Amino acid sequence: MNLTHIEHLGIAVKSLDEAIPYYEKVLGLKCYNIEEVADQKVRTAFFKIGQTKLELLEPTCPESTIAGFIEKRGEGIHHIAFATDDVASCLAEAEEKGVRLIDKAPRGGAEGLKIAFLHPKSTMGVLTELCMK
Amino acid sequence: MNLTHIEHLGIAVKSLDEAIPYYEKVLGLKCYNIEEVADQKVRTAFFKIGQTKLELLEPTCPESTIAGFIEKRGEGIHHIAFATDDVASCLAEAEEKGVRLIDKAPRGGAEGLKIAFLHPKSTMGVLTELCMK
Repeated sequence: MNLTHIEHLGIAVKSLDEAIPYYEKVLGLKCYNIEEVADQKVRTAFFKIGQTKLELLEPTCPESTIAGFIEKRGEGIHHIAFATDDVASCLAEAEEKGVRLIDKAPRGGAEGLKIAFLHPKSTMGVLTELCMK
Repeated sequence: MNLTHIEHLGIAVKSLDEAIPYYEKVLGLKCYNIEEVADQKVRTAFFKIGQTKLELLEPTCPESTIAGFIEKRGEGIHHIAFATDDVASCLAEAEEKGVRLIDKAPRGGAEGLKIAFLHPKSTMGVLTELCMK
């Protein structure tokens, strides 16, 4: 599997309005995009630090998986997304090596990326996304 | 606060012997160092991807904070560490802005870094480390 860098970290927050000022005023990062991803029932805010984006995820309704995550574990880091140039071949390789897949094929994500998730049961508890432009 | 990139992600695992083969054989990363950090009661394994290290943390005894984390939340991402060139001034700035600090001054961490932690109560649930060489 050819992974080049961490494309982003997904961070579950209750409220973008409360979280964005922390990332901007304390950490000194700049929110450059806010985007709603309707099919994941989240509103996202993006920051960039080095090669990696921080993607804050605010649930837009109680049925959002992010709402469930916060309910169960509290706010915090939700997933890690590795950049690759071929998500489909990474999925095929992972499956062949016994990894359970959440997505059998790449699908559309925020910022126009093609994305797919590996199941945390197969990745030592780390919800893992593979993505490419 | 001048943060340049994500220096590492700390990932809590029950067993390095079980986790390292996943990171190497499935994700294709290479473990380049294994180090025990006695005062944190962990054994750590390091991988590099782009600018960022993945630092697997295995508790060496039940009193390790990592053992407590796994007991409570399961294996998974434990903390995010941002690189800066001045940990002490970042701490002073964070405290002035109302952030609760775990470490009032930089201390020694793995790989010879100077590190300090911000409290997750002040960082929307994300245990946040600041570090420098």
